[in-house]
Amino acid sequence: MAYEDVQDEEGKFPLLRPMSELAGKGGFLAALHFAQSVNGGPGKLLANVTGVETPIITMLGCGVVGTGAAELAAAFGNEVRILDVNMNTMLAAKKTSPANITYMISNRSNLEKCLRESDVIINGILWAKDRKDHIVYREDLKLMKPGAMIVDVACDENGAIETCRDTTHDDPIYYVDGVMHYCVDNIPSAFSQTASVTLANATLPYLLQMADKGFKKAMEDNRLLRLGMTCYDGKLTLKETALKQNREWTDADELVKVW
Amino acid sequence: MAYEDVQDEEGKFPLLRPMSELAGKGGFLAALHFAQSVNGGPGKLLANVTGVETPIITMLGCGVVGTGAAELAAAFGNEVRILDVNMNTMLAAKKTSPANITYMISNRSNLEKCLRESDVIINGILWAKDRKDHIVYREDLKLMKPGAMIVDVACDENGAIETCRDTTHDDPIYYVDGVMHYCVDNIPSAFSQTASVTLANATLPYLLQMADKGFKKAMEDNRLLRLGMTCYDGKLTLKETALKQNREWTDADELVKVW
Amino acid sequence: MAYEDVQDEEGKFPLLRPMSELAGKGGFLAALHFAQSVNGGPGKLLANVTGVETPIITMLGCGVVGTGAAELAAAFGNEVRILDVNMNTMLAAKKTSPANITYMISNRSNLEKCLRESDVIINGILWAKDRKDHIVYREDLKLMKPGAMIVDVACDENGAIETCRDTTHDDPIYYVDGVMHYCVDNIPSAFSQTASVTLANATLPYLLQMADKGFKKAMEDNRLLRLGMTCYDGKLTLKETALKQNREWTDADELVKVW
Amino acid sequence: MAYEDVQDEEGKFPLLRPMSELAGKGGFLAALHFAQSVNGGPGKLLANVTGVETPIITMLGCGVVGTGAAELAAAFGNEVRILDVNMNTMLAAKKTSPANITYMISNRSNLEKCLRESDVIINGILWAKDRKDHIVYREDLKLMKPGAMIVDVACDENGAIETCRDTTHDDPIYYVDGVMHYCVDNIPSAFSQTASVTLANATLPYLLQMADKGFKKAMEDNRLLRLGMTCYDGKLTLKETALKQNREWTDADELVKVW
Amino acid sequence: MAYEDVQDEEGKFPLLRPMSELAGKGGFLAALHFAQSVNGGPGKLLANVTGVETPIITMLGCGVVGTGAAELAAAFGNEVRILDVNMNTMLAAKKTSPANITYMISNRSNLEKCLRESDVIINGILWAKDRKDHIVYREDLKLMKPGAMIVDVACDENGAIETCRDTTHDDPIYYVDGVMHYCVDNIPSAFSQTASVTLANATLPYLLQMADKGFKKAMEDNRLLRLGMTCYDGKLTLKETALKQNREWTDADELVKVW
Amino acid sequence: MAYEDVQDEEGKFPLLRPMSELAGKGGFLAALHFAQSVNGGPGKLLANVTGVETPIITMLGCGVVGTGAAELAAAFGNEVRILDVNMNTMLAAKKTSPANITYMISNRSNLEKCLRESDVIINGILWAKDRKDHIVYREDLKLMKPGAMIVDVACDENGAIETCRDTTHDDPIYYVDGVMHYCVDNIPSAFSQTASVTLANATLPYLLQMADKGFKKAMEDNRLLRLGMTCYDGKLTLKETALKQNREWTDADELVKVW
Repeated sequence: MAYEDVQDEEGKFPLLRPMSELAGKGGFLAALHFAQSVNGGPGKLLANVTGVETPIITMLGCGVVGTGAAELAAAFGNEVRILDVNMNTMLAAKKTSPANITYMISNRSNLEKCLRESDVIINGILWAKDRKDHIVYREDLKLMKPGAMIVDVACDENGAIETCRDTTHDDPIYYVDGVMHYCVDNIPSAFSQTASVTLANATLPYLLQMADKGFKKAMEDNRLLRLGMTCYDGKLTLKETALKQNREWTDADELVKVW
Repeated sequence: MAYEDVQDEEGKFPLLRPMSELAGKGGFLAALHFAQSVNGGPGKLLANVTGVETPIITMLGCGVVGTGAAELAAAFGNEVRILDVNMNTMLAAKKTSPANITYMISNRSNLEKCLRESDVIINGILWAKDRKDHIVYREDLKLMKPGAMIVDVACDENGAIETCRDTTHDDPIYYVDGVMHYCVDNIPSAFSQTASVTLANATLPYLLQMADKGFKKAMEDNRLLRLGMTCYDGKLTLKETALKQNREWTDADELVKVW
Repeated sequence: MAYEDVQDEEGKFPLLRPMSELAGKGGFLAALHFAQSVNGGPGKLLANVTGVETPIITMLGCGVVGTGAAELAAAFGNEVRILDVNMNTMLAAKKTSPANITYMISNRSNLEKCLRESDVIINGILWAKDRKDHIVYREDLKLMKPGAMIVDVACDENGAIETCRDTTHDDPIYYVDGVMHYCVDNIPSAFSQTASVTLANATLPYLLQMADKGFKKAMEDNRLLRLGMTCYDGKLTLKETALKQNREWTDADELVKVW
Repeated sequence: MAYEDVQDEEGKFPLLRPMSELAGKGGFLAALHFAQSVNGGPGKLLANVTGVETPIITMLGCGVVGTGAAELAAAFGNEVRILDVNMNTMLAAKKTSPANITYMISNRSNLEKCLRESDVIINGILWAKDRKDHIVYREDLKLMKPGAMIVDVACDENGAIETCRDTTHDDPIYYVDGVMHYCVDNIPSAFSQTASVTLANATLPYLLQMADKGFKKAMEDNRLLRLGMTCYDGKLTLKETALKQNREWTDADELVKVW
Repeated sequence: MAYEDVQDEEGKFPLLRPMSELAGKGGFLAALHFAQSVNGGPGKLLANVTGVETPIITMLGCGVVGTGAAELAAAFGNEVRILDVNMNTMLAAKKTSPANITYMISNRSNLEKCLRESDVIINGILWAKDRKDHIVYREDLKLMKPGAMIVDVACDENGAIETCRDTTHDDPIYYVDGVMHYCVDNIPSAFSQTASVTLANATLPYLLQMADKGFKKAMEDNRLLRLGMTCYDGKLTLKETALKQNREWTDADELVKVW
Repeated sequence: MAYEDVQDEEGKFPLLRPMSELAGKGGFLAALHFAQSVNGGPGKLLANVTGVETPIITMLGCGVVGTGAAELAAAFGNEVRILDVNMNTMLAAKKTSPANITYMISNRSNLEKCLRESDVIINGILWAKDRKDHIVYREDLKLMKPGAMIVDVACDENGAIETCRDTTHDDPIYYVDGVMHYCVDNIPSAFSQTASVTLANATLPYLLQMADKGFKKAMEDNRLLRLGMTCYDGKLTLKETALKQNREWTDADELVKVW
C-alpha cells in the first residue's frame, strides 16, 4: 500500500494534506530564521513592529501550502499576499482570513509587483515535470529587493521557480545572483513529533479498515483506499510504476473482482 | 464661555475631541466617495476585495483624527499606514489596532515611500500658523500615483500640506497638478445628528456644574472650566483675543479671587 | 457569447458574482453618503461612535449582495440584521461573521420590527418579473423612522420593494412619502477600476479556454461554458431571446454535436 | 487592618476590584440561568443564535462591574449597551471592546429606550446611602418587556434601582410588578475558589510587606497601606467608625510618627 | 409526518440540528451553573480570569453539540479541547474557531490526558444502542480532578459514558464516585422561546410545501420530505416502526407512485 | 552620553524598550527554531495544529520581554501562560490580549505547574546581581518534560534561572541535565535592520534636542536627558562608574548650574 495515492471523495489526498500544511508553515519558519543577519539574511524581524515598515510576504499558490504559510505570516502581522489563478479558491480562503492577507490574481503584472516589493517569496505550486516554462525566471531575480529571499516548498527541479533545486536540512540555502534560496525538500521532518501525530491521525482510519476487515475485504469495500494498492500477491497494480519500468500490471479493480 | 478652551487634567481639550474623531472618520468617508469614478476619482472601492490589489491609505499624524480615520479604513481591510514622530503615541495606539495598520516613524524617506504608494493621504496634523515649512510640498505631488488623492482634515492654509486650502461641503474638491484635494474645513457638520449627541455628551457635565452651582461658584471651584471664560461683567478675560485686538484684559484667576 | 449566462458546477453564475459583491458593498457606501445631512440625510455617521446610539442596518436577503453590504456595515460597528428565508444560507454565513450581525428568519413580524427600528434597509433580493406581491409595500414606509432610508441594490421595478424604480448615478435618489430611496441600477460602474480587475479575474479562465482550444473545441468540451453561447454562424442559440422575439432557435447542445 | 480601605496610587481600591469583577460576571451568569423557562424566566438563550432575534443586555455603569458583565454578555454575541455619565470612562473602555457593545450616555431618554428594549438590565452603580432619588423607579418597570429581568449587582437598598433589596443564594429572586429581580448581595461567594485565588493574589503583596518588615515599619513606610489601619494598641484609628459610634480616635498618620 | 426523519441533500437532519445546537450550548450553561459552590460545584468561574489558572473544558465529539458548546466555552476564554476521530470534521471546524480551541484526535491516550486535566467533560456523541463498549468507563472517573464534572448532552443510557443516565430539569444532577453528572435529556426545553423560534424557522419551509401544494403533491415532489412520512390513509410507511412492532408496512416511494 | 540611562517621565527607559521587545520576540523565534528535531529539539511545531496537542509556552515576567514573546507565541495559537507578581501589570496586559494567554500569579505552586507542563519557558525577568536566590533552581529542571527547553532573554548569570549563563549567536545553546538552554545575550543583533530602525526612531528626538539647541542647552533644559550624561569636559558625571572605579565625580545637576 502506498498511502500517498489514497484519495478522498473530492479527489484530494488526505494522507498528504497534513504534510503540505507542515511544509508551508515550516517554510515561513525558515524565512523567519534566515531573514536574521546572523543567519545570512538582511536582519529583519518578519513581524509588524511599531515604527518599522511592515515586511511583505508573498505566497505563490493558494493551496494547503500557501494558506498554511500565510496563516503564520499574517499572525505575526506581516503584509501577506497570495497569488493564484483560481478565484473560487481565493474567495473561499478569504472568508476565514485576517485583513492583512491580500488575494491577487496570478498574472505577470501582479507577479512583478510582488517580486519587486516582497521580502520573502514562498512557492507552494507543484509543477508538472514536463513543463518547460516557469512562473519566476532567473531573469526575474533582478527585480527583487536587496536581502529578499525565496523559499520553495514545492521544490520541483525546473519547476515554478527556475532557479530552485533541492537542498537539505544540513545545507539548506544557496544563492543565485545574490538572492538567497531555501529549498529543503522535506521540511516536515524538522517537526518529526508533530508530523508523526498528524500523519497517524490521518492514516489510522484507513489502517483500522484493513485491521478490522482484513486486507482483501477492505480493498473490496473501499474504492478510494484501493487506489493506494501498489501490488498484491506478486502482481504489480500501480500503473504509473508499470509504465515507468516497462513491466506488466494488473488493474486493481479487476483484481478485486476475481480474487 | 468658549467651550473649545476648556481643558482636562491631562491638558487635552475634551470638548474638541468628539469633533476631531468625527472629522477623521468623515475624512475617510470622503475618500470612499471621491475615489469613485462617478465622483471624479479613479474608480476604486477602498476595501480588501478578493483578487484585487489592496488600496493603501496613509494618515499623517497618530492623533484623534488619524486614529479615527485609520479605524474605519482598516475595518474595510485596506492597508493602512500611520506616520508620526512620537513613538510613545504609536506604541499606545498599536496595542488596540488590527494587523493591517502599520506605524512608521515620520521622516522624509518614509513619507516619500507613502506618497508614491498610497491611494489616499489623510492629514490630521495641525500646523502652527507661523511655520514656513510643510510636510508635503507642491513638488511632492509628482510622486503620487495617478488617481491618488489628498484629504486634509486639519485644513490649515499653508499648513502641513502646502497645496491645501479650505473648501466647503458645497464645493468640496479641487485639483492641483492633477491631484484631487478634499479640504472641507467642517466635516462634522455633515453628521449633524451624531455630532450634536456626542458634543452634548461631552458638554453636559460642564453645563451642569454651572447650572447646579451658579456661574460664579463653578468658575471658582474648577480651574479647568475657568480656562473657557472669555469675558465676565464687561471684562475681557481671554488673553489671546486681547493681544490680537490690542485691548485690555483681566486675568480670570485674579478676577475670581476678588469678585 | 454572453458571459452572464455561464454557470459553474453549483449552478451559480461566477461572472456575475463579483458585480453582485461590488453592488452590495457600494450600496452601503451610498447609505454612508446619503445619511449625511449635507446630502439630504438625517446627519448620522453610520458607525459605532462612543456615547451615541448605534445605527441599525437591515439587509433583505443573505446572498452575495446582502453579505457584501453586511460585511462593510458590520466592520464600522453598526448593528446589522440580515433577513432571509433560508436557514442553511444563514447558518453558513454566520460561521464567519462578526458578533454584531444578527440573522433573523424573514417573516412579516421580523420585517416590521426591522422596518420600525432600522436606519437603513438594503435590498438584495431579485424578484421574479411576474410576481404581483412585494416584501415591502408602500404602506410599510409609514413604519420607518424619520430619516430612515432604503437602498435597493436589486432595483427590480415592482420588485421586492414596491416603491423602488431605477435611478442613475447622475440622479440617484428620490423620496416616496418622505422616505429617501437610492436605487442606482449599476452601482459597480462607480468602482470602474475595481470592477474591471475583478471581472477580468473571473472571465479570463474562460477566455483562455476559447483562446487555447479555439471556440468550437471549447464549446464542445465545456458544457457550462456552452450555456453562454447566444448565436453561432448565424444561428440563434439563446432560447430566452428566441421566445421573446418569436424567432427560431437552435439548441446549443445539439449544434455542438453536429458542427 | 481592614483591607477594603487600602488604596492604590490612583485612589482605587485594589483589594475590592477582583470581587467587583467577579460580581459583574456572576451577574450575567445569573441572567443566563434565570432567563431559562425552567428557572422562571422567558425561556431565552442569551446568545446570538442564527435565525433568532439577538437579546439585548444593558449595563448601568461602565465600572468594573459593568465592563465585567459586558465582557461575558458580548462574548456570547448579545447586543450589549452600557450607560454611563462619564465619556472618558466609556472612551477608554471602547478601545478594547468588541463591536457588539454600544456605549450610550446615561440620560433619561436613553434609559427609557433601554428599559423598553432590553431583556436584562444589570446594575453596577453604587448609590450614596443618603440619596433620595433613583435611576430606575418602580414606575419604570412598566416600560419593560414581558419576561425582562433586573440583576442588581450593587444591591443598595433604595439605591440606583428603587425596587431592589438584598437577596441570598438560597432565595435569590423575587418579582415586583411581574418583573424578576435578582439581587444576591454576595455573588462572588458562588465562585469561592476563583475568588479565593484572585483575592489572595491582590492581598499577598501587602501581607508580605507586613511580614517582611513587621507591622509598625510597614505602616510607617507605606501611606496607602496605612489607610487600612483600624486600630492599634487599643487606639481606634478609623475615623468613620469613631464618628458613627461617637468614640475617640487617633489619627493614624500622627500615631505612626510617635510610636 | 415525523419531522425528525426529514433529511437534506447531504443526509443531515435539518429539523434536529437547531435542537442539537441549543442542547450543546445549554450543556455549557449547565456547567457554568453547577461549577458554582452554591450549586454543589468546586466554586469556579468557568472563564479566563486574570491571575487565575484557566479552566479546561473538553468536548467529546466535534458535531453540532460539541462545536455549539465549544463556541460558548471558548467565548469565555476557557481552554477548550475537542476530541473526535474524524480529521476532516476537525479541519473544517478549526477554520472558523478561535485560538483557544484545541482539536485532538480521539484516542485513549488523549482521552486520559483530558480526563485528568479537565474541569468539565461535555459529551455530544450519540451511541448505538447495541454497543457494549464505552468511551469513558466508570473506572475512568478516578482519573478526574476533585470537583471536575461530566455533562452528557447525548444522554444515552449505557452510551459513550458508562455512568450516565437520564435526568430531568427538576432533578438534574447526581454523583457517581464523587463526580457530578448532569444528564438532562431535554436541555432545549429550558430555552423554550429560543427553541420555538429556531424550530419554526427550520420547519416552516416544509410546512409551506405541504400547505401550498397539498400533502400528496408535496410528498410526490420532494423525496427528502417523504422520508418523514410515517403513515398515510391507514398504511404504516415507517419501516423502523414496522419492524419493531412486527407490523406490515408500505414503502412510501411505492405508495406515492400509485396513489 | 549613554542613551541607556535616559529616562522618560514615568521612570522607564525609552531607549531600551525597543531592544527589550525585539529580545522577547527573538526569544520565541529561537524556541521555534530549536524545537525542531533537526536543530536538537523534540521536533515540535510550536503552533496550534489540528489534531495535535497544543504546545504550552510560559513566560516568566509580564514586562516588555514577556509580553513581546507572548504576543508572537499566542499569534501562532499556542497555549501561553504569563507568570508575574504584579496584578496591575497583568490586568493592564490582559485588556488587549487574546484568549489563549493565561495570566497567573507567580508563586511556587503555579511555577511548578508550568515547569511540569510547558514545552518552553522564556525568562524576561532581570535579576539583581546581589540576590542569592533564584526563581528556577537547577533541581527544578527535573520537573520539566522531555524535550522542554529554556530560553533566557534576561541572561543574568546566577539570575532568575540558576542554570543560565550567557551564550552567543555562534554557539547559542547548551544542555544542563538534559534540558536545552538558549541564552544568547544580544538577541536583537540578529535583527540588525529592524533594531537599527526602531532604535533610531527612539533616539532621534533626543539627538535633535542636542543638535537643535547645542549640547549644553539641551542638558540644561531636559532633566531626563541629563540622566544620560556620563562625562563632560573631562569630568566624570556618572556616579555608578565613579563608585565602581573609585574615582572622583561631579554631579550633573550641579555642573549644569555653573557651566
